[in-house]
Amino acid sequence: MASLRAAQALRPALRTTATTTTTRSLRPALHNTTRCLAAAGRMASSKAFFQGEPDGPVLKTKIPGAQSSRKIAELSEVFDTRSVNMMADYPKSVGNYIADPDGNYLLDVYAQIASIPVGYNNPALAKAASTPDMVNAIINRPALGNFPSHDWADILKTGILKVAPRGLNNVFTAMAGSDANETAFKAAFIYRRQQERGGPDVDFTQEELDSAMNNQAPGSSSLSILSFKTAFHGRLFGTLSTTRSKPIHKVDIPAFDWPQATFPQLKYPLDRHAEENAAAERASLDEVERLIQTWHIPPAAVVVEPIQSEGGDNHASPAFFRGLRALTRKHGVLLIVDEVQTGVGATGRFWAHDHWDLQDPPDMVTFSKKAQTAGFYYGNPALRPNKPYRQFNTWMGDPARALLFRAIVQEIERLDLVNHTARVGDYLYAKLEALQDKYPDHFRDLRGKGQGTFIAFDNPKRDQFLAKAKDFGVNIGGSGASAVRLRPMLTFQEHHADILVDALEKIVKAL
Amino acid sequence: MASLRAAQALRPALRTTATTTTTRSLRPALHNTTRCLAAAGRMASSKAFFQGEPDGPVLKTKIPGAQSSRKIAELSEVFDTRSVNMMADYPKSVGNYIADPDGNYLLDVYAQIASIPVGYNNPALAKAASTPDMVNAIINRPALGNFPSHDWADILKTGILKVAPRGLNNVFTAMAGSDANETAFKAAFIYRRQQERGGPDVDFTQEELDSAMNNQAPGSSSLSILSFKTAFHGRLFGTLSTTRSKPIHKVDIPAFDWPQATFPQLKYPLDRHAEENAAAERASLDEVERLIQTWHIPPAAVVVEPIQSEGGDNHASPAFFRGLRALTRKHGVLLIVDEVQTGVGATGRFWAHDHWDLQDPPDMVTFSKKAQTAGFYYGNPALRPNKPYRQFNTWMGDPARALLFRAIVQEIERLDLVNHTARVGDYLYAKLEALQDKYPDHFRDLRGKGQGTFIAFDNPKRDQFLAKAKDFGVNIGGSGASAVRLRPMLTFQEHHADILVDALEKIVKAL
Repeated sequence: MASLRAAQALRPALRTTATTTTTRSLRPALHNTTRCLAAAGRMASSKAFFQGEPDGPVLKTKIPGAQSSRKIAELSEVFDTRSVNMMADYPKSVGNYIADPDGNYLLDVYAQIASIPVGYNNPALAKAASTPDMVNAIINRPALGNFPSHDWADILKTGILKVAPRGLNNVFTAMAGSDANETAFKAAFIYRRQQERGGPDVDFTQEELDSAMNNQAPGSSSLSILSFKTAFHGRLFGTLSTTRSKPIHKVDIPAFDWPQATFPQLKYPLDRHAEENAAAERASLDEVERLIQTWHIPPAAVVVEPIQSEGGDNHASPAFFRGLRALTRKHGVLLIVDEVQTGVGATGRFWAHDHWDLQDPPDMVTFSKKAQTAGFYYGNPALRPNKPYRQFNTWMGDPARALLFRAIVQEIERLDLVNHTARVGDYLYAKLEALQDKYPDHFRDLRGKGQGTFIAFDNPKRDQFLAKAKDFGVNIGGSGASAVRLRPMLTFQEHHADILVDALEKIVKAL
Repeated sequence: MASLRAAQALRPALRTTATTTTTRSLRPALHNTTRCLAAAGRMASSKAFFQGEPDGPVLKTKIPGAQSSRKIAELSEVFDTRSVNMMADYPKSVGNYIADPDGNYLLDVYAQIASIPVGYNNPALAKAASTPDMVNAIINRPALGNFPSHDWADILKTGILKVAPRGLNNVFTAMAGSDANETAFKAAFIYRRQQERGGPDVDFTQEELDSAMNNQAPGSSSLSILSFKTAFHGRLFGTLSTTRSKPIHKVDIPAFDWPQATFPQLKYPLDRHAEENAAAERASLDEVERLIQTWHIPPAAVVVEPIQSEGGDNHASPAFFRGLRALTRKHGVLLIVDEVQTGVGATGRFWAHDHWDLQDPPDMVTFSKKAQTAGFYYGNPALRPNKPYRQFNTWMGDPARALLFRAIVQEIERLDLVNHTARVGDYLYAKLEALQDKYPDHFRDLRGKGQGTFIAFDNPKRDQFLAKAKDFGVNIGGSGASAVRLRPMLTFQEHHADILVDALEKIVKAL
């Protein structure tokens, strides 16, 4: 309670709600398939988590206003601003609302490309960021592989590893989603070659050592990572070779000749296309198996997002993913689940792959974004390379960001935000179904039912839709060719859903 | 003065010294070729910058002691610890001394693999890390490409860009050295293909867009980055293809078939091998030119470290680098200078390439480590890709770390630490020359004269040397096959040099 009182002393403060009195251990909350708090939660939902949050969007100018335009021009002198969506004023932002320099407040359901977990200026995070531990982590940054701090094990066990996916009790820490995925890829290549060599105790040949220095086989392995069409796994050279979202992400950049399988393209509503969809998933799995068996550069791993996010919010069924796990296991290929965008609660489970009820966990799960730090989890000790310095870099993550994730986990636990998001997601989805009935051309292929607030739909005038949204006080992102993706924070509540749905209707009327 | 008083109020506090009264603007300090403060500085050198710093190493146990061993075992359960050098206690560390959980204090001339700039628990950094701006940057992390903060231009201009290399007034921010280099590589590929296409206004062909999605030419370009043997540029897939330091860094990881040139292998002492060394440099430049003209995957850029650091502290002359600049310019190939380890003052200039007196600046300069943030500087506006979202990722850096770099720059300016390091480096180098005369077998190929404290030598029993160093209270790192590399912080003073030299003699006597 001490920390709660301290949090309340801060402004803007987090109100205590009914849900705060039902604090439960995190584990059951994360893996509980029932959502028994839904009814009680709905009664509590009219109270805002954040004091100081506006009752609704505040629009003082067109966006960008004069102040924002001036700031953007100033920044353009030294920094590429052509992808700027809006200029923000973070000290003024609060909870689910992003502020700008012109005094506008937008309900933010894009949330820094799905990376803000528990609201702007969350007082519990502000408290964590003001501790001597945090100051120490910022000013004395260690090379974690060589000189870890005496409390690094404790920071991991009480934070990053407290929420580790079932069966994966080790972590390799990283900086962001892209290098988290690349280090997971490297672990897969090293593991596969160790197996081919006859185990971790078999040493490299001189030919391997020499040829590796010349970027040639056999030292530089002829192995690949299999990914899916319309996937997004990052934009560094290895990850970009697995990313298949948009040409603009890839053109002109050299790439590895790695294989891609078709991701099932489900038809909506799901219940009306059950057979077709099951057939699409079987065809996808068949293609994966064929590529594993025949691609001229054999895959050491398959990497997959639980929901293809940047690629347009493409879903597949738990059965598909269980099939993928079985298939990769059968062929001795590792399964890397990329939870960079889907992880940390937004789908109504802590990890999206918790929805799959896997008996045999993924080999590696990567995380970033809402975790505010990054890395990959693994369980099999053989995924630690057989010698030191094979997976290594100067910083290997950032303890300051690991401390912040610990505070985020505590906040999620304190407010039961995973179950909360499952419940609010159901509430929002039902309202969107009603909108879809009313405006079928504007809310096509509504998807994400039972997936918390991780909801999307297609709109034929998507880019205008997103631009127009700001006129009605909401900040929304797109993905894929024509998807509108909703990515609220975990602190998004029913009254925010009401505001959002009201705005969505105004947007389509104005299109 | 207000900030100075506030800094003094903190413990351990930075003492004011004679150099603090000669605060000068940063610019002249960075680019001034003379070191007029050397004499005055030496008079001030007996006073420690840090109050609370021990007078010398404190050894209470063998390292690792019982506490450290227990902590390492505990960490091993969840994190690979086989590259752990020593367990640290950062809250207890101070200035140039790293503490461990057993109460030991070592003079640290490795400094987190050359990444601690101005001492552990530097009070000015502690102050910067405790401000509302820092708390805001930690808890409200923006997607800088989409939603930059209203003060991002100001943070850049007063920090990262205040110390931009001459001629390079733009920055693309990143997370660490490896992704800084990879984004620089991507900029080079995009720039080269734009030129080949006929300029930024010529659009992609449909064939390019389609083939890029399949990782095939022409969309995925058949271009390379030329690097040097024994170079180190990072360990992600693109950078690892340019890294040629050690097989253990590369084996089993797929690599691009990119070219490598021989880095000049200079003989020491330089004045006795002037002709041979000049010939080696000419041969290296000839090889670079030949590879640019003949490699089957043409280089879009050459990447080079001013001093090959991880590869063993391999130096080349300013004339070599001027030749490399002329050669790359002649052939329309970009020059990327990787200052990740050499940058931010340790060579006695703010950027190591300041030593070269280039009239035509590098196209890009990458930075990280002592900057505590990362990215690449550039000057030519055409290095901004012709369309948005070609260089983009969710976070694109970290404003919290950019704020810290600003505080580091201010501290360097306040204490004139670049000139200070040039002077202390000269002092240390002279003492090492004397040791070399006395123990020629143990201090081979002493190098780094006139390069601040960026000094190295070879020892035939290098690994034992480094292990033994801890017994005499110093923490030292190695590089290459047999190099002992000294990487003190910028706050390393003459009295620390005396302690270090005394320990070095004890180490070689005990070998």
